[in-house]
Amino acid sequence: MNKELSESQITGKKYLIPKIIDDKKNIDSFIEDNSEKKVIVVQGLGFVGAVMSLVCANSVNNEYIVIGIDLANKENYWKIKSINEGMFPIIASDPKIKEYYKKSRDKKNFYATYDPYAYSKADFIIVDINLDVQKKNNFNGDLLSYDVDLSNFKKAINTIGENCKDDVLILVETTVPPGTCKKIIKPIVDKCLKNRGLNNKNYKLGHSYERVMPGPDYINSIKNFYRVFSGINDESANATEKFLKTIISTKNYPLTRLGNTNATELAKVLENSYRAMNIAFATEWSRFAEESEVNLYEVVNAIRMRPTHSNLMYPGIGVGGYCLTKDPLLASWSKLNHFNSKKALSQSEEGVKINDKMPYFAFEYLKKSFRLKNLKDKKITFLGISYRSNVADTRYTPVERLYNFCLNDGAKILLHDPYVKFWEELGISISNNLNQILNSHTDILVLSTSHYEYKNSSQLIDTLLSKSKMMIYDTVGVLSESDIKILSSKHILKVLGRGDL
Amino acid sequence: MNKELSESQITGKKYLIPKIIDDKKNIDSFIEDNSEKKVIVVQGLGFVGAVMSLVCANSVNNEYIVIGIDLANKENYWKIKSINEGMFPIIASDPKIKEYYKKSRDKKNFYATYDPYAYSKADFIIVDINLDVQKKNNFNGDLLSYDVDLSNFKKAINTIGENCKDDVLILVETTVPPGTCKKIIKPIVDKCLKNRGLNNKNYKLGHSYERVMPGPDYINSIKNFYRVFSGINDESANATEKFLKTIISTKNYPLTRLGNTNATELAKVLENSYRAMNIAFATEWSRFAEESEVNLYEVVNAIRMRPTHSNLMYPGIGVGGYCLTKDPLLASWSKLNHFNSKKALSQSEEGVKINDKMPYFAFEYLKKSFRLKNLKDKKITFLGISYRSNVADTRYTPVERLYNFCLNDGAKILLHDPYVKFWEELGISISNNLNQILNSHTDILVLSTSHYEYKNSSQLIDTLLSKSKMMIYDTVGVLSESDIKILSSKHILKVLGRGDL
Repeated sequence: MNKELSESQITGKKYLIPKIIDDKKNIDSFIEDNSEKKVIVVQGLGFVGAVMSLVCANSVNNEYIVIGIDLANKENYWKIKSINEGMFPIIASDPKIKEYYKKSRDKKNFYATYDPYAYSKADFIIVDINLDVQKKNNFNGDLLSYDVDLSNFKKAINTIGENCKDDVLILVETTVPPGTCKKIIKPIVDKCLKNRGLNNKNYKLGHSYERVMPGPDYINSIKNFYRVFSGINDESANATEKFLKTIISTKNYPLTRLGNTNATELAKVLENSYRAMNIAFATEWSRFAEESEVNLYEVVNAIRMRPTHSNLMYPGIGVGGYCLTKDPLLASWSKLNHFNSKKALSQSEEGVKINDKMPYFAFEYLKKSFRLKNLKDKKITFLGISYRSNVADTRYTPVERLYNFCLNDGAKILLHDPYVKFWEELGISISNNLNQILNSHTDILVLSTSHYEYKNSSQLIDTLLSKSKMMIYDTVGVLSESDIKILSSKHILKVLGRGDL
Repeated sequence: MNKELSESQITGKKYLIPKIIDDKKNIDSFIEDNSEKKVIVVQGLGFVGAVMSLVCANSVNNEYIVIGIDLANKENYWKIKSINEGMFPIIASDPKIKEYYKKSRDKKNFYATYDPYAYSKADFIIVDINLDVQKKNNFNGDLLSYDVDLSNFKKAINTIGENCKDDVLILVETTVPPGTCKKIIKPIVDKCLKNRGLNNKNYKLGHSYERVMPGPDYINSIKNFYRVFSGINDESANATEKFLKTIISTKNYPLTRLGNTNATELAKVLENSYRAMNIAFATEWSRFAEESEVNLYEVVNAIRMRPTHSNLMYPGIGVGGYCLTKDPLLASWSKLNHFNSKKALSQSEEGVKINDKMPYFAFEYLKKSFRLKNLKDKKITFLGISYRSNVADTRYTPVERLYNFCLNDGAKILLHDPYVKFWEELGISISNNLNQILNSHTDILVLSTSHYEYKNSSQLIDTLLSKSKMMIYDTVGVLSESDIKILSSKHILKVLGRGDL
């Protein structure tokens, strides 16, 4: 039965999901082999947890063994098996990923499991599971409503509480609605320990959010970057500080201690809301630039000279990824629900709303600027699927929405990305052969991700110049000023955020 | 009759406003004395025009004579007289203002007038008049509506067109709704010249917005800072560039040329909208911090470590001054009216709306955090009137609204500012004697401007410690962490944006 299989997204290998949760023997023997070391259990083997596990398994003083834990289900079981079989479940351009994984294999200090029994052995539990926002957008991207369902998150914390030692340090790295450590996690753990007849004053609960950036600096974004932390009380903050110092290069990137867990939780969503808002600002002004025959790129370059404006964003097709598309809503939800505020974070919510509309604007501008009533039978090639340049990451990529608009409007679409082999969300195979794609017949070429392979490719420019007249649509500033001049002499070229072309 | 007098805001001296506009003789003789020099006429003698005149009169090669022109009315006539009598009409902490003015007196190359006849002598006309937005806010600060009335601006341009030479360079520095050079100024000048039987293809029209910052670096904010410029056509852009190079230190601060006048006009309002939005962001999150017992100052400090977040703003009482309170609306108005867009700049408008509410939030938080139902008969002392630290500038200061809320709620108020002698907008004299103010009886001390005199004053802390228990309310982060600790031991202390106190 399909339901009981979990397929590796890397090798395609299928694993039978166990019906009985029992991995005790393996856990016990893994710990026995390393009995002098402290045990870290990382809850969640996603983009953060899997790599955090590697960093912990390679701490400077080599004082830990690490157990990564995730659920035995379709989405996650293959990761557990893969880790134990010698294949790290994330492909990344950072060579340190491979290096760190190999070292942990050599040291035999990293094991993955699905059995909550692991928590009972942990001196440190790091919470790296997801906490999602349920967004309802209509087809055009309008945000109709959103909600935060904490039930899965609570279940995960409950599992910890039902199994953990009474003196464990629980370190939460998950981006949570501010207030969660105090209002959700602590009450659950307190209650579980009490029900188990254990002392519930001894354990430590800390919060220190990650700033993980998948890509070429994946490991460094954990190990060599600033961290903010807090604890549910002084002992917890102290224990968190002591622990982080063994994992992160705090000499070069000193830790910042904040007054309470609400503060660090708020800091994380504030950080991402700020960035999301700044992107939305560029979106709004891109439309104005298009209407007023202004090149917003040159305007941004001119203004970025001012130190107070150096982070002004360029025009683009939209925001993707796991964080910026939801964190402002997580924050606003928390304000309304955890703190009974009467007012939402209206400006931060507005940022998400504007960003969610970006692919729609890109679609409208495509039709308007090429003077097309619709895209019926137009052959369109997308260069780039990933939401970020130089990375294989299609989570909430804005390209998906633009792709759907075009498809829905009658276009025939080819897709290319140098990093993505399979577009998981849509279940489509992606070509990695740029030459082949460029030499297929195309009416409209859409540059949709600013990958290095497109941005600095004389092959791309030369091939395009050799082709008969076509429409080229740069949505993310791939083309340089001189590329634009050269290509405009032969093709019809339009750039999002440039009304001057 | 009062109507015919214009009173100096510096000396109090009253000038009889002339009924007949005729200053030809003086203008002619001023020019005759400097007949080998090019003539610059600066339209508008406000915060920008007056100081721009000084910078022009002190160009490196000393090639210009400068005529400043403003209207012969109550608000402006005294400035004209004052300049010609040896008293510069702006008091500023920048010592260069005095120096530059003295030099221009010595060189006798700066004259002020009210007679448009001056335009007929100009080789260069610099437009530095105001273009206001008519905002309607209710008492609580809610922005109900806004509009842009261009009639005065058009009249001013018309006066130029009716008098100028047909080969003049008109350089617009006023912050205008994007599109104004093309859609308003050029048509007016074209028509005027045509009506006068002159060639209307010869004149040049450029736009280069100022980034003037009244305060200790007033002159440098013109002379030694980056400039963006454009022209209505290539010749205009070239002429503008050539002119600016004689006025500004372009070797150290290279000029940036943009594609068209819409682009530079848009750049200016974008710059200010960005800043206004960033301030609004801090406002919104300050409320959240207060609700969730978080110290937003420490959160901002922690996040500012990231280069992408280095311009994150601190909590505060509100936005003041002439630009940030209106420029996003100017932009949005232009999008809707000059470019017939269907969509306003919703996010940028939201920024203004949030900022306009800041004093109301400050007032609400005052009452809530000190647990006061109302302020009836409470003695309140405000330290700081100006909207910016270390400057005497009360234009649209948020302190005005907070003051009015308190007054309206029954409080008795004392006001202090080290820089402001007279609060023009309210017609109130302001004490400059800190010692006296601190020793008057006060129930609530409000720190409302972050002047150096308060921020680094052991006198302030010592005096407060010597007094009996009172309420202290810091709305702009005047007090340091250690000040807060010391003062909290004796008084009830609250800080806007800090829910942890």
